[in-house]
Amino acid sequence: MIAAPYLLFLGAEDDRHNIKTASGVARWRPQDCVGQLRMDGCTLDLGLPDLTPEEAVRQGVRTLVIGVVNFGGVIDPRWEEPLERALVAGLDIAAGLHVRLNDNDRLSRAARAHGRTLHDIRQPTTPFPVGSGRKRSGRRLLTVGTDCAVGKMYASLAITREMQARGIDADFRATGQTGIFIAGSGICVDAVVSDFISGATEQLSPDAAPDHWDIVEGQGSLFHPAYAGVTLGLVHGSQPDAMVLCHDLGRTTIDGYPDYPIRPLTDAIETYLAAARLTNGGARFVGACFNTSSIADEDAARAALARAAQETGLPCCDPVRTGVAPIVDALTG
Amino acid sequence: MIAAPYLLFLGAEDDRHNIKTASGVARWRPQDCVGQLRMDGCTLDLGLPDLTPEEAVRQGVRTLVIGVVNFGGVIDPRWEEPLERALVAGLDIAAGLHVRLNDNDRLSRAARAHGRTLHDIRQPTTPFPVGSGRKRSGRRLLTVGTDCAVGKMYASLAITREMQARGIDADFRATGQTGIFIAGSGICVDAVVSDFISGATEQLSPDAAPDHWDIVEGQGSLFHPAYAGVTLGLVHGSQPDAMVLCHDLGRTTIDGYPDYPIRPLTDAIETYLAAARLTNGGARFVGACFNTSSIADEDAARAALARAAQETGLPCCDPVRTGVAPIVDALTG
Repeated sequence: MIAAPYLLFLGAEDDRHNIKTASGVARWRPQDCVGQLRMDGCTLDLGLPDLTPEEAVRQGVRTLVIGVVNFGGVIDPRWEEPLERALVAGLDIAAGLHVRLNDNDRLSRAARAHGRTLHDIRQPTTPFPVGSGRKRSGRRLLTVGTDCAVGKMYASLAITREMQARGIDADFRATGQTGIFIAGSGICVDAVVSDFISGATEQLSPDAAPDHWDIVEGQGSLFHPAYAGVTLGLVHGSQPDAMVLCHDLGRTTIDGYPDYPIRPLTDAIETYLAAARLTNGGARFVGACFNTSSIADEDAARAALARAAQETGLPCCDPVRTGVAPIVDALTG
Repeated sequence: MIAAPYLLFLGAEDDRHNIKTASGVARWRPQDCVGQLRMDGCTLDLGLPDLTPEEAVRQGVRTLVIGVVNFGGVIDPRWEEPLERALVAGLDIAAGLHVRLNDNDRLSRAARAHGRTLHDIRQPTTPFPVGSGRKRSGRRLLTVGTDCAVGKMYASLAITREMQARGIDADFRATGQTGIFIAGSGICVDAVVSDFISGATEQLSPDAAPDHWDIVEGQGSLFHPAYAGVTLGLVHGSQPDAMVLCHDLGRTTIDGYPDYPIRPLTDAIETYLAAARLTNGGARFVGACFNTSSIADEDAARAALARAAQETGLPCCDPVRTGVAPIVDALTG
């Protein structure tokens, strides 16, 4: 569990794509984002107060979150000074980098000296069990995608919030770094040794009350030539009662893989259902979430959603443009 | 690359299931198995000369292979003395344990002191790339299963030998510990971080001459609630032109998962084809390998194979009872 509230670290970044983690946390957990820490050269702004580590501590901040996703997932040597200063001031640090904070001599020494914790959320600290396949109590919804980066985390959070607003007992279960900072806990499933993907997912979403819903953040895609194994383990381990298909209307091929066309929606639905029914014979789709940002015109976007609803027989939403109420209606109806 | 020839270490085991690795290596690489090393209490015998490490070195042995698979994959403290003695005598040690030889103080100190290598084959020493999905040159056959432990390694080796005997340029590509000791190299795919399963498999079976065949050892099963993610990454990364379905005729449910029935053969074939065609549109099945050891009567076993051939439309063999010639005929026909 990562202690909130947070100070969001933006490094010296000048490309907003590189601070997707920070902006996701600021968007979905604004009440716990007290400030931002920007180094010289950073031209980005989350609209939060700029705070030094010492000011952040005085305002009750507990953890500095590294909100930067850089190439290779490394600790930029220029970060060491401000990060060490944060530890000295009394903050923990949390990161989802490929490289471990705990393997950095300067930072691990400072953390030890000042009694602070370095959270390396991509590196599991406990061993996971092998998947048992045992049906667990409680109910589960999993977002799945025609590709990576099509809005599965956003859809999962939007559905969780809509359910909670209706008084339904629902928890968001994070499987990627931004989701983990938002939830305060979770498991980076793509960092788990492959033998344990479904076992880790089972652990992420344990037995629960019969009417409780876990909304499990999807990862990857069954149609992705690199990541489909992660996705299948997540489908099997989460044992979804309900699935929501996520899709970017502007995408025709797998992102970064121009030889791999995006599958037709009905084909994707069939494939996910066949996979999910291994561990949950009652798995069904309750809706689809589209990123329609490639369609500027509001009416045209709504017409595209209506066509998709016709094609799939499912309520189709854009969580940003239309909200996800029809999906929660379908889930509870 | 693990240097041959080998001294096979059997520990103090008295259950032949626990020395499956040693017996697999002795069966498939007899010319490089010079002797066995048994501790007090070991009641098993591979039919090899019992050698001390010093005797083994004098007979040209280069590596002691830990042929034991124990619960938890740990280094039994009683092994330390004979293993240290092997290092002192001049042998490398290779193991596929979950625990690393290199993390054992006594053994790593002895290895350093005597200039020996400790091969931890479950722990990749180099980082793997993310899968590219790029079609590679050369041809590939992958064995796939209705379950784990149904003879995929045995079938892969039998097919490789049959092809080599016919003068076909073929290599066995190992994906599990026993296979790696037999081949001398390979990648334990189930030990790879899940993001890199298909990338690791791509690296295992690189571009090759147009008429070269890689025979890739399958792992797990798409129908296994714990391991299907590993299997899917292996299917995608190996880009099989040809697949061979492996099945144990005596099994009705997934081993250790009594709530999971074994799928009908035709269902399994359809599912594997759909998965494989993501990265290789020309993927097809060329045969099936059955373990018929549950049928004592020879004629009854052959009748069962004939029925399976009818059902699947594929040549069906038991590699132990009948050999795999009909499958290689189908592959090259």
